[in-house]
Amino acid sequence: MSQNKSKAPAKYQKWWGWGADGDKPYAVANKPKFPPFAMDKLGVDILAKDLTEPRLADIDVPASILGDELREQLLSTVGADNVRTDDEMRVVHSYGKGVRDLVRVRRGILGRVPDVVVYPGSGDEVQAVMEACLRADAVLIPYGGGSNIVAALEAEPGEQRVVVSVDMGRMNKVLEIDEQAEIALIQAGALGPDMEEQLNAKGWTLGHFPDSFMWSTVGGWIATRSTGSQSDKYGDIADITRGLEMVMPAAEGSEQRTQVLSLHPLPSYSSGPSVREMVLGSEGRLGIITQAWMQVHRIAEAREIQAYFYPNYDAGLKAAELIAHSDAKPMMLRVSDAAETEFSMANGKKSSTKSHYINKAMQKLMTAKGWNLEEICISFVGFEGSPVHVRYAKSVVNKIVRAQGGMNVGKGPGTLFDQKKYDIPYIRDFLLNMGIPADVSETATPWSRTKEIHDETVKAAEQAFAETGHKGFIMCHVSHSYHAGACQYFTFAVADGSEDNMATYDHVKRAVQQSFMEHGGTVSHHHGVGEEHSPWMEQDISPAGVHIQRKLFEGVDPGKNLNPGKIVHDGKPGISSNSADA
Amino acid sequence: MSQNKSKAPAKYQKWWGWGADGDKPYAVANKPKFPPFAMDKLGVDILAKDLTEPRLADIDVPASILGDELREQLLSTVGADNVRTDDEMRVVHSYGKGVRDLVRVRRGILGRVPDVVVYPGSGDEVQAVMEACLRADAVLIPYGGGSNIVAALEAEPGEQRVVVSVDMGRMNKVLEIDEQAEIALIQAGALGPDMEEQLNAKGWTLGHFPDSFMWSTVGGWIATRSTGSQSDKYGDIADITRGLEMVMPAAEGSEQRTQVLSLHPLPSYSSGPSVREMVLGSEGRLGIITQAWMQVHRIAEAREIQAYFYPNYDAGLKAAELIAHSDAKPMMLRVSDAAETEFSMANGKKSSTKSHYINKAMQKLMTAKGWNLEEICISFVGFEGSPVHVRYAKSVVNKIVRAQGGMNVGKGPGTLFDQKKYDIPYIRDFLLNMGIPADVSETATPWSRTKEIHDETVKAAEQAFAETGHKGFIMCHVSHSYHAGACQYFTFAVADGSEDNMATYDHVKRAVQQSFMEHGGTVSHHHGVGEEHSPWMEQDISPAGVHIQRKLFEGVDPGKNLNPGKIVHDGKPGISSNSADA
Repeated sequence: MSQNKSKAPAKYQKWWGWGADGDKPYAVANKPKFPPFAMDKLGVDILAKDLTEPRLADIDVPASILGDELREQLLSTVGADNVRTDDEMRVVHSYGKGVRDLVRVRRGILGRVPDVVVYPGSGDEVQAVMEACLRADAVLIPYGGGSNIVAALEAEPGEQRVVVSVDMGRMNKVLEIDEQAEIALIQAGALGPDMEEQLNAKGWTLGHFPDSFMWSTVGGWIATRSTGSQSDKYGDIADITRGLEMVMPAAEGSEQRTQVLSLHPLPSYSSGPSVREMVLGSEGRLGIITQAWMQVHRIAEAREIQAYFYPNYDAGLKAAELIAHSDAKPMMLRVSDAAETEFSMANGKKSSTKSHYINKAMQKLMTAKGWNLEEICISFVGFEGSPVHVRYAKSVVNKIVRAQGGMNVGKGPGTLFDQKKYDIPYIRDFLLNMGIPADVSETATPWSRTKEIHDETVKAAEQAFAETGHKGFIMCHVSHSYHAGACQYFTFAVADGSEDNMATYDHVKRAVQQSFMEHGGTVSHHHGVGEEHSPWMEQDISPAGVHIQRKLFEGVDPGKNLNPGKIVHDGKPGISSNSADA
Repeated sequence: MSQNKSKAPAKYQKWWGWGADGDKPYAVANKPKFPPFAMDKLGVDILAKDLTEPRLADIDVPASILGDELREQLLSTVGADNVRTDDEMRVVHSYGKGVRDLVRVRRGILGRVPDVVVYPGSGDEVQAVMEACLRADAVLIPYGGGSNIVAALEAEPGEQRVVVSVDMGRMNKVLEIDEQAEIALIQAGALGPDMEEQLNAKGWTLGHFPDSFMWSTVGGWIATRSTGSQSDKYGDIADITRGLEMVMPAAEGSEQRTQVLSLHPLPSYSSGPSVREMVLGSEGRLGIITQAWMQVHRIAEAREIQAYFYPNYDAGLKAAELIAHSDAKPMMLRVSDAAETEFSMANGKKSSTKSHYINKAMQKLMTAKGWNLEEICISFVGFEGSPVHVRYAKSVVNKIVRAQGGMNVGKGPGTLFDQKKYDIPYIRDFLLNMGIPADVSETATPWSRTKEIHDETVKAAEQAFAETGHKGFIMCHVSHSYHAGACQYFTFAVADGSEDNMATYDHVKRAVQQSFMEHGGTVSHHHGVGEEHSPWMEQDISPAGVHIQRKLFEGVDPGKNLNPGKIVHDGKPGISSNSADA
């Protein structure tokens, strides 16, 4: 079912890739060192193909099964402009932006496309939409920026009920700032940039900058337990979220089918098992988050990102650990392994021998120190606060870096990094066009296992590449530090452009996830579970932990109307269905 | 049912009051200013009565209904020494140490005394005990240090099933320290001092020092979402706890009735609703925590507690807020209101006109500044870390204090405070002997409501005192600071030694709790819910929040064998049963 294309009620990404329609693609022409890098690592000539955009008209979109009664109820609740059943909006809301999503959508493999996309404009409208959907026994899938990469936005294959995608994009306001408590009440549908713009205008920041920042929302961050790149200072979203409202099913037998959970803002509490922490990470299975009280901070007086080089990753990891246990309290700490360092250097615009990050004088110095240039690792450490704090913190960090044999190379590379930090998904789209599926997996461990899980995961991926018979590449960085450990963020690509390349990709992805499980990691540090990671949940939080989550979901949503199948899977999730070949 | 008194398998507090048998009582003779203070505030001559210890022999202890089959199973699991059915151990395990508990136990009002006290020595034994109890449809109540003050340790009145108190005191070891990740694996039954002793011996500390420290355990802290006095640096127990094991019921239809939840240690994760945060604060309703991976820290190089005076509480609150938002990052920040400042001064040993905290020269200085000595407020700020950090942090704090009109009075009072910080429960016991029930209630709010909730709660308590016709006293301090707000800790006493004094106490307690609800607070910041606070849960986390907790408990423990009635009450908890007079 389709209707005339009209102005969408909210911003949205293009149906076949990252970013808005018309965003500039990755400019390989400006990166002279990248094609040889890709040829070396993946054996692919990335200049060989012309890019042709897929056309929606070429794809067969299944008809909507939305019935008249529910349609009327939705229309009367949110108005005609905010109920969409046209092909484009339905396809946009079919998937997130994982590589599997992109591959499928470009091939016209749409799965269970939502029957309707609804755009509520208030908490009351969300409740009315859910009330109507529960009475009609429809399925509700909340939708924020659409950047999810763990298959949390797609309906279950074969879902017989009407599927309603609830796009929160109209609810994008910072409603209130409590300047004394440094908390702000923000609507769940606010995208990162829109929210920061509203906060910055009054001198505030949330300090939450995940890689998906351009296309993710406050509600999405909460629902997936997101973490931003400056979490070392500002905390994970779980720390930042101090109160919230969520529309959810009422108790069985109530006259109304829905109720509103309201958790007023608190710095801390001892009121039983934390309901706030149950909503965090619930991925739509408990309800639809409508607004939240979030910690905000005055924009820091001083801010800078220093770059450092280490002779190897071991030295960088040890320094990261010591910095995390020191008084320095940086706002960001990133250490790339040798592979990622090489990748970063290959993405420079300039044509210096080695990179845009280090010049020839530095190279000479490194060689003189006896460093193997194939093993060097770049690190970025961000500092924020009063000028005195920044000065002190830098002195603490510099001392630790030197003790691990590293060297400070100043602010230049950090400034560049800061400007480019949201560009990676465009490279991924470009590589996919070249027949190279690439994606990311991240995990956290105690510090005592950071090296082990890094080395073993790289080894497992390399073995998986070999098993598939395709060239592959994996790289990693420390992305978030805590007292007890760190998150390491792996990016991997495999040079298979064939029709079977998702089986190839799955084989590698499974090897990576299994390595996480075997070496003290978690299924995900901040991307969530969705369907993609649900096969590993029992290994991560033990069968008893999954049992507890299952009881929670069954108790709150006995009709399984709320994004069923995510986190705790009742059937067989996508990636495990191929597990026979693992 | 009783048996010969033998050496208890674990440390325990005396049945009728705080601390071990033979602990020195509050030494009023050394506090010349306290009797006039008590006469002034409460109209009671606290030197008038002789202390007589209650005798267990005077109390009628109901017989145990433990049957032979379960007894045999328990004996064969943990051995004869670790199964106790004698009166003393059963009475010790009947209640926590709230003032209501002490009043009841001294009057021989025992309620539903546990039928047996079991002391497992390992996680396997805990599982075997729970397995036997679930098969026998018995009730399990986990027991740590016994210091709970929210009625979380008592069986429901009229409970027809066998009640088993599971005392974790034999499981008191630090099993392992991961020096790289700075986490330690600690058994749940370890009391504060025993645990710190084991950690300190290797140069480590947990940094968790609640007022109950001497008589509370790792498992109890987790089960109640405890917070220690140095949480500004070390975090709440929820932050400190990185992994854990818990014995819990298996899914219905399983061959075994029990299973073990195992959450391996992680710095952070995105694996669905946080199961770790469901166990935190579960007060025995989901299972029995057996051991946990806890963050530890190297004992700080430098440590000091500075004292400050403010002309009034408003100035102290504003300074606390500014310190919390600064770079200073103290380990502790405490500000007493004028009433508590006066109480502290009245508890000094020396006979200087005003107190042991300020001398005459200081008094003159304050008077010269135009301060009203009735309004002055004392504050303690603790600093820890490298000497450079401590120096910097002090300079930041001193600047903020001065800007709010406060003054630094050096390290002396802080050192004294540090030595005496665990003594308050002995004063409470002493006052109770004098016919003055006293207890504490704490709550947290955003900074924007700290002054409001303080002033309104004091007003509500004073009105409640007047309504009861008894003199009363209430005082408060800021005990824990966060980015978004603070905890304020109220202590109140009412001069009613009559047989009806629990109705008087309840009237005041209800007024305090209701004020928390009306002014942005939470039912409890770190004492938990138990039965005592359950009547306010719907006002705190909304009816939908209680619904979620109820579904969680029902799902995990459908037979209601695990500490039923706590947090979410199915019947009518104690304190609300008098609510007609509220």
